[in-house]
Amino acid sequence: MPDKSTLDVVLTPNLLTLYPLQGKVVVVIDVLRATTTMTVALDQGAAKVIPVESIEECLSYKDKPNHILAGERGGQKVEGFNYGNSPFEFMDGVVNGKTLVLTTTNGTRAITMASSAKEVLIGGFLNFSALTRWLINESSDTILLCSGWRDKFNLEDTIFAGAVIHHLKEYFLVDSDSAFAAEKLYLNSRRNMLHFMKQSSHYRRLARFGVVNDIKYCLRPDLTNVVPILKNGALVRADVTKDMV
Amino acid sequence: MPDKSTLDVVLTPNLLTLYPLQGKVVVVIDVLRATTTMTVALDQGAAKVIPVESIEECLSYKDKPNHILAGERGGQKVEGFNYGNSPFEFMDGVVNGKTLVLTTTNGTRAITMASSAKEVLIGGFLNFSALTRWLINESSDTILLCSGWRDKFNLEDTIFAGAVIHHLKEYFLVDSDSAFAAEKLYLNSRRNMLHFMKQSSHYRRLARFGVVNDIKYCLRPDLTNVVPILKNGALVRADVTKDMV
Repeated sequence: MPDKSTLDVVLTPNLLTLYPLQGKVVVVIDVLRATTTMTVALDQGAAKVIPVESIEECLSYKDKPNHILAGERGGQKVEGFNYGNSPFEFMDGVVNGKTLVLTTTNGTRAITMASSAKEVLIGGFLNFSALTRWLINESSDTILLCSGWRDKFNLEDTIFAGAVIHHLKEYFLVDSDSAFAAEKLYLNSRRNMLHFMKQSSHYRRLARFGVVNDIKYCLRPDLTNVVPILKNGALVRADVTKDMV
Repeated sequence: MPDKSTLDVVLTPNLLTLYPLQGKVVVVIDVLRATTTMTVALDQGAAKVIPVESIEECLSYKDKPNHILAGERGGQKVEGFNYGNSPFEFMDGVVNGKTLVLTTTNGTRAITMASSAKEVLIGGFLNFSALTRWLINESSDTILLCSGWRDKFNLEDTIFAGAVIHHLKEYFLVDSDSAFAAEKLYLNSRRNMLHFMKQSSHYRRLARFGVVNDIKYCLRPDLTNVVPILKNGALVRADVTKDMV
């Protein structure tokens, strides 16, 4: 029987340089709200989602047909953009068949930083089971990359990583302090995650902007089987049906 | 009444560049074992402890009278050195009146990185109460810097930082996700810290080297009132008697 693959947690993008990515799968996590919104867009029929780091790069797609530009900085919609980073903005058919070009404070940058990995996936509570099934099936060395807040540690991404650790630790070799701590924090939070999240700085930041419903949505598990995967610089739906365990 | 000063936790030295240090107090934490050993040396009468980053720099003090060289890499004594990084090596008068020059894998580097702060202190369980009293009395913006393991997150330093947060949060403004998480992990561990620590990668690393007694010693609280403070590149005993609250 072959050795198990490894599963580890990187608590902020600033620490990613300490981890070799070659041959590995990286799951980028930005629960509030980028990875949730990207997954919703693909679930709602978007052909693809292009994550871009800068507002300028986002604007360079302005005149392309069937492209929708969206952006957020500091938790708020970028001025002059028609769409921000709320998952609710991308329901009701607005992205169906379109390409969403999205730039956010933390999540899109983390995706760019991970792009030398073998595969880059996007995870959030809404695709938790589909994502974890994909990871078990793929069975490669895997890094759960928390997007954090301006390179600092954040609570919500760590708790999500901890949930993945908790559910996958029998399938993978899990052996780091960051994975252990993330799992503990998840176990502390899971009976009342919203209450626990109220302690997080980003919850309080977003609550000031009146988007508590966004937060509640971002914590709801298993709303979709869509797992976004990075292909040629754009996120598309991973094939989650074939060879499933 | 003046605003409270801030108290925050930096989970690894790699993240320290995200935090301005000017005018702040930094507490460097390397529970297993550098900050414990440094504190023991000063408690046992060492005139000062010079933390140096490299083995070469340490060796440059070789011919100076009354200097004792000590060093550890990867958890083990550096070959050719008479002393490593075990607190037990510096008891029984060996450092009395001497200068200890010490290089370790993580802790001494973290001290160098913090040296632009207003004050740099050294903390561990053995001087917990003396340290926290000093911080309350000083009442400056304070950063608890976990030394980590080769720039990655580690459990034992985070738990110690969480203990400080738990005991000082009524005196300081505590408002970050890293501080919240550290406190939670401390609360998870405090009923049986040794058992909890057995999950940490550095515990397992040190246990392989047969130094479980070192670990037990490093977790014992309040063995001394000595608080090491950095003055002109060397750690000396902070004055913990004057103006105590």
